[in-house]
Amino acid sequence: MSEQNSTTAYDALKSRFQRLSAIGGAQAMLSWDRSTMMPEGGSAARAEQQATLSLIAHEIMTAPEVTDLLASAHESAEALPAWDRANLNEMSRVHAHATATPTDLVSKLSHQRSSTEMIWRKARAANDFAMLAPELEKLLGLVREQAAAKADALGLSPYDALLDSYDPDRRSADIDVLFAELESFLPDLLQQVMEKQASAPKPLPVTGPFPVALQEKLGREVMSILGFDFNHGRLDVSLHPFTGGVPDDSRITTRYDESDFIESLMAVIHETGHSLYERGLPPEWRNQPVGRSRGMTIHESQSLLFEMQAGRSEEFIRHLAPRLKSLFGGEGEAWSADNLLRHYRQVGPSLIRVSADEVTYPLHVILRYRLERAMIAGDLALADLPGAWNEGMNELLGITPPDDASGCMQDIHWPSGSFGYFPTYTLGALTAAQLFQAAGKARKDLGNRLERGDFSELVSWVREQVHGVGSSLTPDEIIISATGEPLGTAAFKRHIKARYLDR
Amino acid sequence: MSEQNSTTAYDALKSRFQRLSAIGGAQAMLSWDRSTMMPEGGSAARAEQQATLSLIAHEIMTAPEVTDLLASAHESAEALPAWDRANLNEMSRVHAHATATPTDLVSKLSHQRSSTEMIWRKARAANDFAMLAPELEKLLGLVREQAAAKADALGLSPYDALLDSYDPDRRSADIDVLFAELESFLPDLLQQVMEKQASAPKPLPVTGPFPVALQEKLGREVMSILGFDFNHGRLDVSLHPFTGGVPDDSRITTRYDESDFIESLMAVIHETGHSLYERGLPPEWRNQPVGRSRGMTIHESQSLLFEMQAGRSEEFIRHLAPRLKSLFGGEGEAWSADNLLRHYRQVGPSLIRVSADEVTYPLHVILRYRLERAMIAGDLALADLPGAWNEGMNELLGITPPDDASGCMQDIHWPSGSFGYFPTYTLGALTAAQLFQAAGKARKDLGNRLERGDFSELVSWVREQVHGVGSSLTPDEIIISATGEPLGTAAFKRHIKARYLDR
Repeated sequence: MSEQNSTTAYDALKSRFQRLSAIGGAQAMLSWDRSTMMPEGGSAARAEQQATLSLIAHEIMTAPEVTDLLASAHESAEALPAWDRANLNEMSRVHAHATATPTDLVSKLSHQRSSTEMIWRKARAANDFAMLAPELEKLLGLVREQAAAKADALGLSPYDALLDSYDPDRRSADIDVLFAELESFLPDLLQQVMEKQASAPKPLPVTGPFPVALQEKLGREVMSILGFDFNHGRLDVSLHPFTGGVPDDSRITTRYDESDFIESLMAVIHETGHSLYERGLPPEWRNQPVGRSRGMTIHESQSLLFEMQAGRSEEFIRHLAPRLKSLFGGEGEAWSADNLLRHYRQVGPSLIRVSADEVTYPLHVILRYRLERAMIAGDLALADLPGAWNEGMNELLGITPPDDASGCMQDIHWPSGSFGYFPTYTLGALTAAQLFQAAGKARKDLGNRLERGDFSELVSWVREQVHGVGSSLTPDEIIISATGEPLGTAAFKRHIKARYLDR
Repeated sequence: MSEQNSTTAYDALKSRFQRLSAIGGAQAMLSWDRSTMMPEGGSAARAEQQATLSLIAHEIMTAPEVTDLLASAHESAEALPAWDRANLNEMSRVHAHATATPTDLVSKLSHQRSSTEMIWRKARAANDFAMLAPELEKLLGLVREQAAAKADALGLSPYDALLDSYDPDRRSADIDVLFAELESFLPDLLQQVMEKQASAPKPLPVTGPFPVALQEKLGREVMSILGFDFNHGRLDVSLHPFTGGVPDDSRITTRYDESDFIESLMAVIHETGHSLYERGLPPEWRNQPVGRSRGMTIHESQSLLFEMQAGRSEEFIRHLAPRLKSLFGGEGEAWSADNLLRHYRQVGPSLIRVSADEVTYPLHVILRYRLERAMIAGDLALADLPGAWNEGMNELLGITPPDDASGCMQDIHWPSGSFGYFPTYTLGALTAAQLFQAAGKARKDLGNRLERGDFSELVSWVREQVHGVGSSLTPDEIIISATGEPLGTAAFKRHIKARYLDR
């Protein structure tokens, strides 16, 4: 085939993917609206709108001619500039994922997800696993079918095929190594930290109320410090904080509790990290697959880089403390940076993942990773899930949930069919530690800058090393190029020791 | 063709139009967001999303097989139930409009509209018609092309073909008669009203400030009184008030001026009228053409029924007055119902259509109707528009604009390519008067109910007579069935006399 033809094929693919990107952008705005603005009574109409756009996008992606266009474009891919070549590869990757699942299974999954999620909300509230089990069983069956279909199409194990859709090129063999390392030192480290904290003075209470309007003002101030551009985004309120929208119109949310400002503030910093990533993606590739973010591990590394690494650093808390005190009209030693730091750094085993500290958090993830692999492999029956969960909690964290609501039913992921997602939280935490330490070496004076409330050097470094790369490299390539080594646990271990033991 | 086949054709059309309805709903939410929530920097991405959805909808509507399906379905339409038959007719109507304009002209129009609107904003601010003229000339050329193409396809005159897309089955011959009647009595009536008002006491000033938060509270209270269901809609703020969203999630907006609460409150009532119409459309036909609102005249009749007829009625102002006084902490005679009524009923010639009173408003519309017909017919060159405008203002209202910004450049309609829209404002006002008087006859005690803040009878009547009809009847059929006679000017004349002269 002549070069002319393959350029034409690639151009046709670019048009098609640009259309998909615009539909995806519309979908993102509808989802954001659903979680922030939509009145309850709009649900059915919105579901219809979203299902229709999904179906149209699916049709555009899986139309038979796309396979031919891809084959034709690949024939003389060497003639393409590097970014276009990477773009073509990424087109093939997302196309392979989209076409691997038969259309009728896509539709069955979508319906079963909705009904299982609905039942889950009720079952969790009623603390009744038996109520959830039959629907979850059906959903798990469909997810296993999907995993098998994807495994076939992608030449991976079923679990890895699921994992690959959240974190491209990540394999469970690599995760096994990393998680085994964490398991080897984390429980011990946790003991040491807890002993140290037990002998230290308890944090003085920082008491509210902290009015929502002031918390929102604080959130916006901190977003501006981090480099959030309000001409290209918004801050709103939702039940669970999230980052939505599109790179040029990035919508983050938080929630407010008038008796505690810390959680909302940290959520704002976390979501700003996600948002900065989206905003920093290569502008000239906005509407193409290669211009998109590189999976959930890298995404989570950006939120945690800003929240856990920089945001909870001693330097930045020292910068924030006087502002918090003046904003909320606080008085006395409770509002000192040292006392606030203590609040930000309480460590100990707990039942609920989303409120766990960064030392125990990986243990929550390891438990879920073990269990979901076993479920996908068919080695763990759903009926045995609650028992296996409680045993695992006891083994890893030394505590046993009093009920399934605060045990194996606490997360929405499985009831919404997301198997293979959990590991990215901890892989993201490891990546964040490794990136932050590399940034500290690459750009001198980072700590002093944070103490002055200056994030510009950190942002410019991650823009260059991570954001601007888009999907032109694999996650591992991004990490190696930015930090000089593959993803490991050493930086995370150093971080935990430095923050909780050496201080 | 067998009945089986035509049922199949009709069912296929229903699926297709359901998809179009969902895309339209998504579009409506994106437009609402654009005007209420979107940061400026999101414009380009949003434009891409909206253009893509428009293009997809256009492709679905104009695909060659639709013509065959329609022909096939019509062959045995008699076998269909009445609403399905009406639905099929409506499908044909919107399809005829969509296919009448060649695709490349649709695209040219869309681009020329954007650029002309952009120039118009600058030209109006700079009061420079010469800056606008070249772009408006190009746009007018394209609109005339479109009008000619539609005229051909629909068997109408070019202007009527444009009119038909805003107000189905409305013909300029009918408008000529109605507007001639208005011209025959309105200037005279205006003189009498002004003389009467000149000899009456001037309204006492109602002074603010009126805090935005209180105005919003008032708006929500009044919306509830009118029957707005906040489980199926929202109130927000935008530069110009509008009603957006979908029937099950109706989003209205207003704007606030802290020195005047009347304008915002009336905008809220006006938009609530539009919204109640959308909410009241037949639920079982939500996603089909026959379930949609019946054009802009009927739509405007609903907003004006609530704003101008019921909302500014003496009875309802008497109901509102004590609440306004207590809400804003007002004191004295200025806050009496009589004084507030005087504020709501100041009449006199003015330059700007959107702030005109209901007596002079039709004269503004008649001027625009004359001029746009002449432009579409090619009888008025753009260079002569400012002069023709000023002459017309002088003839109809006895005043001459000092400049084109407050003259022929004041409205966005022409720069955005909307020719044939203006008449629907006044046709809507005539319809509103006729409907309100019919409602008063059909449901006794309406006035007393309004004085008690009870809109339930009025709402139930328009639900039955107008909203629930959807597009199963033509606008004229709706008016005749609801009021017993075709649209005329008598009810409007009675209304003006009763409100401004007989009182």
